[in-house]
Amino acid sequence: MHLEAIYHRVTQNWAYAYDEKTLHIRIRTKKSDVARIDLNCADKYKKEITTSVVPMVKWASDNLFDYWEAAVQPPYRRLVYYFILQSDDQTVYFMEKGFFDTLPDNMDDGLFDFPFLNPADVISPPQWVKDAVFYQIFPERFGNSDASLNPPGVEPWGGVPTRLNYFGGDLQGVIDHLDHLSSLGVNAIYFNPIFEATTNHKYDTKDYLKIDPQFGTNETFKKLVAACHERGIRVMLDAVFNHCGHAFPPFVDVKEKGKDSKYADWFHVREWPLTVVDGIPTYDTFSFEPIMPKLNTENPEVKEYLLKVARYWIEEAGIDGWRLDVANEVDHKFWREFRNVVKGIDPDIFILGEIFHDSIPWLQGDQFDAVMNYPFTNAVLDFFAYNRIDAAQFTNNINSQLAGYPRQINEAAFNLLGSHDTIRLLTLCGGNKNLMKLASLFQFTFFGSPCIYYGDEIGIDGELDPLNRRCMEWDPANQDQDLFSFFQRSIALRKQYEALRTGTLKFQQDRCTDKTLVYERFDEQDHFIILMNNSDASITCKAAASESSWNDIESGSTVLAQQGQLTVELPAFGYAILHAVK
Amino acid sequence: MHLEAIYHRVTQNWAYAYDEKTLHIRIRTKKSDVARIDLNCADKYKKEITTSVVPMVKWASDNLFDYWEAAVQPPYRRLVYYFILQSDDQTVYFMEKGFFDTLPDNMDDGLFDFPFLNPADVISPPQWVKDAVFYQIFPERFGNSDASLNPPGVEPWGGVPTRLNYFGGDLQGVIDHLDHLSSLGVNAIYFNPIFEATTNHKYDTKDYLKIDPQFGTNETFKKLVAACHERGIRVMLDAVFNHCGHAFPPFVDVKEKGKDSKYADWFHVREWPLTVVDGIPTYDTFSFEPIMPKLNTENPEVKEYLLKVARYWIEEAGIDGWRLDVANEVDHKFWREFRNVVKGIDPDIFILGEIFHDSIPWLQGDQFDAVMNYPFTNAVLDFFAYNRIDAAQFTNNINSQLAGYPRQINEAAFNLLGSHDTIRLLTLCGGNKNLMKLASLFQFTFFGSPCIYYGDEIGIDGELDPLNRRCMEWDPANQDQDLFSFFQRSIALRKQYEALRTGTLKFQQDRCTDKTLVYERFDEQDHFIILMNNSDASITCKAAASESSWNDIESGSTVLAQQGQLTVELPAFGYAILHAVK
Repeated sequence: MHLEAIYHRVTQNWAYAYDEKTLHIRIRTKKSDVARIDLNCADKYKKEITTSVVPMVKWASDNLFDYWEAAVQPPYRRLVYYFILQSDDQTVYFMEKGFFDTLPDNMDDGLFDFPFLNPADVISPPQWVKDAVFYQIFPERFGNSDASLNPPGVEPWGGVPTRLNYFGGDLQGVIDHLDHLSSLGVNAIYFNPIFEATTNHKYDTKDYLKIDPQFGTNETFKKLVAACHERGIRVMLDAVFNHCGHAFPPFVDVKEKGKDSKYADWFHVREWPLTVVDGIPTYDTFSFEPIMPKLNTENPEVKEYLLKVARYWIEEAGIDGWRLDVANEVDHKFWREFRNVVKGIDPDIFILGEIFHDSIPWLQGDQFDAVMNYPFTNAVLDFFAYNRIDAAQFTNNINSQLAGYPRQINEAAFNLLGSHDTIRLLTLCGGNKNLMKLASLFQFTFFGSPCIYYGDEIGIDGELDPLNRRCMEWDPANQDQDLFSFFQRSIALRKQYEALRTGTLKFQQDRCTDKTLVYERFDEQDHFIILMNNSDASITCKAAASESSWNDIESGSTVLAQQGQLTVELPAFGYAILHAVK
Repeated sequence: MHLEAIYHRVTQNWAYAYDEKTLHIRIRTKKSDVARIDLNCADKYKKEITTSVVPMVKWASDNLFDYWEAAVQPPYRRLVYYFILQSDDQTVYFMEKGFFDTLPDNMDDGLFDFPFLNPADVISPPQWVKDAVFYQIFPERFGNSDASLNPPGVEPWGGVPTRLNYFGGDLQGVIDHLDHLSSLGVNAIYFNPIFEATTNHKYDTKDYLKIDPQFGTNETFKKLVAACHERGIRVMLDAVFNHCGHAFPPFVDVKEKGKDSKYADWFHVREWPLTVVDGIPTYDTFSFEPIMPKLNTENPEVKEYLLKVARYWIEEAGIDGWRLDVANEVDHKFWREFRNVVKGIDPDIFILGEIFHDSIPWLQGDQFDAVMNYPFTNAVLDFFAYNRIDAAQFTNNINSQLAGYPRQINEAAFNLLGSHDTIRLLTLCGGNKNLMKLASLFQFTFFGSPCIYYGDEIGIDGELDPLNRRCMEWDPANQDQDLFSFFQRSIALRKQYEALRTGTLKFQQDRCTDKTLVYERFDEQDHFIILMNNSDASITCKAAASESSWNDIESGSTVLAQQGQLTVELPAFGYAILHAVK
């Protein structure tokens, strides 16, 4: 047995409370190296009456490893345990103290110990998040309803976006187009920044307590939230707390008065005066961008100010979530206080961090509920759009990501395939709408909350900023109705079946080769097999099937399994969603 | 290369800020599998001018793995990186995205990312802790100076302890014996509980705000703290916050009134009424002990009460630390609030958790400064006292523990070889004083703060509770003066040389065989080689030596290296501490 490959530690994704009664214990082993693992577990203070042996399930595999899991409900909420690993010719006992061929005499001091399942420590993203379908709106480009707010020099709706121009999108424009969102089926909006700022993207905040006058007033925003809530649509705002904008009054004051400003400690000044030398500001900023000075979130006044902002928009306008910009560059300590404030008002407020990488340090229950799941984005795009990896590698990448987090974190992940920061999905897919559908269908049949970047659903394309921020297309004749209908159907399907949201995901990895992807989603009620052909030629695709009769959701026809196997013809970039007939 | 053995994640012991400027990046590889590792690192926003390649140091090895580390000071406090691993016949690039034989085109989305070194997140135990030598006092058995406080039925000092009897130890008894501590050289006391309770060990607290009348008054305690501080001795109290005692008024109320008590939610009642069925209380307790009901630390009133207690003894009496009993069974959320309260008063207050296992979830800067380092205890006892492992395995165990934590956590660990809960060290050593010296010398030349259990230093022995709680021996004729002198010298040596506290530790693993232990401690000023013979026969012991001339600290003689090698004769259970002559 390859002992060096085995990993377990009583922390993070390896041992955690899934809910107030259940612990998940996980371990990894070298791929195909171990045949069986049992978890020997007990209450440490009364082993004699509490010991049980739980077989572990091999629930995922990637390039190098198999991942095993057991769910245990310890009667007194304490659990000590060790693993019994078996291969064909070997049995190994694995405990905190190490690996043993036979159980050591002095075991007690060397067991793994999950000391107590305290409800306060259960990682609990709001329940609604795993059922949410988000829609991201870049407010300057969604709808221009109130011409009186148009910035000077506003350009006609639908023109070519530049980094600096304006088209007059406003909040009334969103209110007036909520029918579109309801018709699509989304139940949550993520807004790019809407507070007063000097740019069209508003990431350089000037006043965190005021809606940008180009978008409307605080009252317009309250009206918008109320209108959304009436339709069952939740509203999430962008909290740009890592940095402010150059017009933020405290920064203006520091620029004017230097060291003597009473706001001098609100920023991270490496060297006075504030200036830029060879492209590098003498103060910390977002990236090296002089107009976005980094806020010193360790300063009590800064903290107080930002936490007031966090509170204000929840209490005044009733927002349902905060999306935290550049979340990983702000100190963890600040985010813990932020969470206490936000969840103290309402535990159902969603806290979503923008982090492009492995995010485990923020996802332990004390900071964020979820992160923008860019590793997911990358895997999906690598397979579908860039053609960089084959289906087998794609399943390995996804499994590896799932194995890296507690299950409830996967269930609440914010899964996006594009945003104001990326090339639009349709463009990445080379304009191939069917390919775009495959990628999106995977998104809609995966864990977490999918997010649609405004306009993707009606066929808007676009390269990187500024071209990914084109005006929303409102003329039905110019909207891709076929694509819209696909998004409608996908969302409706996801909403209808819990199995597609939180059910078990199982890739049929031996069927996933080259361009063919086969996976299952199932729970006690429903069983789906989804097959995708990520190639430009039609293929005959086979899948293992536990049930005999299946309904093809798109065509309505029945597909029968033969000797436990389904055979499906898929056209180029085609897919099939099969639902077991029970 | 054995890729499955390689582990790195941007979290916990693998990537952390050591101080406000320095990141430590660590990786593990299969033992003896990789010849060289370089860390390629940069600021993610300006790679072109910030990229550097840092060779990593193989700093420790255990049974299965080599551990490598690099220290980096990123100029703008952000670091993205990947590893270049080289074996004789292979080069592998390792990044968040996986392992590659050649650098992939789209590297940027797959690098490891330490996003920002925020000072607030640096794990910073109080500076004084790594220079502390603790002395643990079990108050009922240390000194009886005030006969007026004697409990009824008190027995003559020095009698045989039982679980229930009393000898009248009190706080004045501690004050009167501080000379002993000063003479020994300790600079911190850890007190077992001293708050009002009904047992002789006082772990069943009745009133957290009152010194037990058998020990004195709150005023006596303040006098004690002042007297300690005058001598440069810090004072740490035992916070038994996991559970209270059966006489704690809220619990008495719940026992009387059941569900209707206003304190009903202060406890975890599984089933009413409060009773014990087949040895199992119907409410959560410490272990299954009915007189120690577990406190519901999620209840706001309980929190407020306990945090008031935490504050009270710091502000009123000036204590320097809290030792947290059964710390791992209390929720993390409570400990985060506890830390905020305590560190809000004074960041120099030490927070020490009692945890018997791997404690990484509590040691990330948001909860404890240190834990009672039982894995260290176990390794030392397994080698020296129990003879369960040989020297090679001992070095593996210690290295494995060091590798599991950030360096500053190792530097602040609370290293004990015995306590009121264990068999006394001398007894574990079969009465062999020389063996006991070896174990203690290792403790005094290791990272962290060593703790002496009262009386160990003068030769008190004893089996498990109650025999490990004998009265302190104050008659010099009955004290082992040779042992006392050994402890004095060891403490003085430790205090004199920083290298013995925080210097690099290097086991000469190829010299560590069977019963022979050889290790070095060094920093820029000093270099020590310590050799131990853990056997009952004399041996000739060899050590590699970078310097040529060494001073034998105990004998004062000079030892010369021959061709880079020292040869030292060690009697049975003998040792040598060699200090390089520079």
